[in-house]
Amino acid sequence: MKSLKMIALGVFALALAAAPMTQTIAQEKRVVNEKFTTKWTKGKDGIIRTVVPKRPAGQQHALQLATPALKTVRVGFVGLGMRGPGAVQRFTHMKDMGLSVEIKALCDYERERAEGCQRYLREAGMPDAAIYYGENGYKELCEREDIDLVYVAVDWDHHVPVALYAMEHGKHTAVEVPTAMNLKDCWDLVNMSEKTRKHCIQLENCCYDFFEMNTLNMAQLGLFGEIVHVEGAYIHCLDDFWPYYWKGAKDANGKHRDPLGWRMRYNRDYRGDVYATHGLGPACQLLNIHRGDRLKTLVAMDTNPFHGPEYIKEKTGEEVKDYQCGDHTTTLMKTEKGKVIEIQHNVMNPQPYSRLYQLTGMKGFANKYPEVAGAQYALGGDALGAGDGVPNHENLNAHGYLNADQQRALEKRYMHPLIKSVGEKAKTVGGHGGMDFIMDYRLVYCLQNGLPLDMDVYDLAEWCCVAELGYISMTQNCAVEVPDFTRGYWNVESKLKMHGVEGKE
Amino acid sequence: MKSLKMIALGVFALALAAAPMTQTIAQEKRVVNEKFTTKWTKGKDGIIRTVVPKRPAGQQHALQLATPALKTVRVGFVGLGMRGPGAVQRFTHMKDMGLSVEIKALCDYERERAEGCQRYLREAGMPDAAIYYGENGYKELCEREDIDLVYVAVDWDHHVPVALYAMEHGKHTAVEVPTAMNLKDCWDLVNMSEKTRKHCIQLENCCYDFFEMNTLNMAQLGLFGEIVHVEGAYIHCLDDFWPYYWKGAKDANGKHRDPLGWRMRYNRDYRGDVYATHGLGPACQLLNIHRGDRLKTLVAMDTNPFHGPEYIKEKTGEEVKDYQCGDHTTTLMKTEKGKVIEIQHNVMNPQPYSRLYQLTGMKGFANKYPEVAGAQYALGGDALGAGDGVPNHENLNAHGYLNADQQRALEKRYMHPLIKSVGEKAKTVGGHGGMDFIMDYRLVYCLQNGLPLDMDVYDLAEWCCVAELGYISMTQNCAVEVPDFTRGYWNVESKLKMHGVEGKE
Repeated sequence: MKSLKMIALGVFALALAAAPMTQTIAQEKRVVNEKFTTKWTKGKDGIIRTVVPKRPAGQQHALQLATPALKTVRVGFVGLGMRGPGAVQRFTHMKDMGLSVEIKALCDYERERAEGCQRYLREAGMPDAAIYYGENGYKELCEREDIDLVYVAVDWDHHVPVALYAMEHGKHTAVEVPTAMNLKDCWDLVNMSEKTRKHCIQLENCCYDFFEMNTLNMAQLGLFGEIVHVEGAYIHCLDDFWPYYWKGAKDANGKHRDPLGWRMRYNRDYRGDVYATHGLGPACQLLNIHRGDRLKTLVAMDTNPFHGPEYIKEKTGEEVKDYQCGDHTTTLMKTEKGKVIEIQHNVMNPQPYSRLYQLTGMKGFANKYPEVAGAQYALGGDALGAGDGVPNHENLNAHGYLNADQQRALEKRYMHPLIKSVGEKAKTVGGHGGMDFIMDYRLVYCLQNGLPLDMDVYDLAEWCCVAELGYISMTQNCAVEVPDFTRGYWNVESKLKMHGVEGKE
Repeated sequence: MKSLKMIALGVFALALAAAPMTQTIAQEKRVVNEKFTTKWTKGKDGIIRTVVPKRPAGQQHALQLATPALKTVRVGFVGLGMRGPGAVQRFTHMKDMGLSVEIKALCDYERERAEGCQRYLREAGMPDAAIYYGENGYKELCEREDIDLVYVAVDWDHHVPVALYAMEHGKHTAVEVPTAMNLKDCWDLVNMSEKTRKHCIQLENCCYDFFEMNTLNMAQLGLFGEIVHVEGAYIHCLDDFWPYYWKGAKDANGKHRDPLGWRMRYNRDYRGDVYATHGLGPACQLLNIHRGDRLKTLVAMDTNPFHGPEYIKEKTGEEVKDYQCGDHTTTLMKTEKGKVIEIQHNVMNPQPYSRLYQLTGMKGFANKYPEVAGAQYALGGDALGAGDGVPNHENLNAHGYLNADQQRALEKRYMHPLIKSVGEKAKTVGGHGGMDFIMDYRLVYCLQNGLPLDMDVYDLAEWCCVAELGYISMTQNCAVEVPDFTRGYWNVESKLKMHGVEGKE
């Protein structure tokens, strides 16, 4: 440890001598966590650039990674607290869609949680799964030979260790959001996926919500023209949720390790947008990020933490002096092509749930929230013809919203093919209104058909990196470069593809 | 000029020797305008601070400036193109509100425009006003002895020269938005108002719109709790407006000096939010800026200019290579107390008109756009009682929107006293639905009663400075400090006051 510090000091001294300066942000005064420790340099242009690890020799990028088709997708679930059980249940419905799934193993830190999920298998007439539990349960699960996919819904601390272990042991892995909590995690996952040629994706369900998918379809068909500005968010006051849904595992004495939940701990210890993916995922898809464009620079600003410390004080009596995460955090990102994505995070203040999902194009506009049909789409003059209730837009004020009837006609005409084929079933099975089912369906479908997945490990890294990058921006008061996680291949693909979707409809 | 450059070089050399560095942003490569030339220093914290001119000896601040009551407010109008004529007409209605106004003079660069406005006076049975025109018309008007107030609605190039000349000649002045186009303008107006003890305000009508005023009233009564985040914007595609409403004056040959209007020229020549006040004014009022809190740091990010160059090419054939203003510009500002204001500017892309006007408080939330009653307010549990259709909020989900009936009851109960007394008349007279009339009414009312105005010269400077500060932030890739235009007195007042309003109801 001492020698590491000496080396760090040495590097620092060297950096002072010659610009640009090299630093790790762990030296920053306000850091109370140990995970935001990426080294960076500040250029003469004032922009901070984090160190991009060199791709190991012989290792290839994993864009459009396709793995051998699986006759049956054999899955093991790790983490069966809040999100896991619903996933198990959804997987029992895959056969209704003509897919073949075997649920081989169920794992949770708490044995009873794992065992509790057998009931979904029994209800579906499927054989019981093997049960794993305790701190090392996930390792035993990953070491099995008869599993293709490890589906991870553990607490945030364990996303990356489980995902890495799964890939190391030859498994594809799909991990709840946010999968990676810092830049090191992002690079570790990218490298492991590239090295092992195993899929590693983030379970970003919001990419599969109905409004988002239909709008993405419209966008890809050019209805909004060139899209120049996109907003996304996670705005959801969690006061009713902290104590119930995010309890951590218990310690040896049966006490919860985090009395207010580990999720509150993340907000307490980390500054920056620690939960960006619900907003950023769909936004990046609209702009074809690392498929012809890339996130390039980022600036962030947050409010002070007002409610977090107040909440902790109220619940535990503790006066937190070094609480990190502002009530409201805003992150702005500019792409190589000059578009801007804005992402907001607020889990503290009472307000209506919103993921924003707003796009501004050169020919039109869409805005999901508030979800009032008749105040969500506006289109320019030449995008549409007439005949199916969608009006002739030559006669429309291009700046005004389509009314509710026009919107319904528009959504009908431009319904995403995936919604057409899976939408009704998804609504029956459920999971956030159906989007969870569509997401799981696509994962299994592509694995079974040997197709590249809709999302890849670079999406994962891009959508998760904003936490630490935002932290650097706010503590250093400057713009920060978003690393190119593809390391040179962001411009190879031309747009987001969902393989097998067009062909199937 | 040469010696100035030498001094600048000297300062620069000095700055290199000792941090922080002093620079004028005119040295920045992309500058094509000559108005953003403020000197700044960059601190070790990475934040740029612009030079704050010292308050001249003997000069006092102009907070809560009250001037002798005027039995009659004698007004001269300068600029009668687009916004001016409506103002003249509105002033003819002041007598209906028990106020006394004499319209002494009308001035425009074009004589026929000035003379055209006599008809409003005649329709109201008021005596004809003196007519001024040409490049120096405003000077002759300002030099009259029988005028108290110069009301300015000229093109943006002339806002500041007219306002300064008016104050120098003993007149109060009220100027259209944005009054100041850069930091030098801001400081010049602050200094002139402080020195002459004349009012200098910005005609920010959006502060007087019905939703904004009622919501401000709720905010001041604590309904939303501590407000931590506010959004504002000017989102208005001006494609239908450039050629009609913002034609510049004609040159000696009868040609328009700016064939696409001087407003397009501003977008072409300036990067940053050049029209921030409609969003920022109401936002600052909600946060009591320079009345107990202050804007402190700013970061900005814009998209590339996509539509502007395309529009110019289409209309004139010119290929503009150095077009400045991005289609969409976002500016984030943090206050001393740790709140954040976000301001957006987009006059380029087709989308529904919006000024955002969104606030997030620790007890509630309001959002003006889209203007759908039933999706605009959300309130926490303990803010309201029952009995007048406003439900017992103990039974409400604090995160959900009030429905349309609840909202109407809420707006009725918390109607701003000014809307109660002037609202109906304002709707009859008109001007953006009535807000223009309420604004003018308040200006005249306060002058006539010798009361401090609702807005002061510091509001003006704060709401206009973001153009140049945003430009600095974007070109230097860092946070910029917002200068304290009160020079030390931002914390003297405790909240925004509208004098004579409470007492009168």
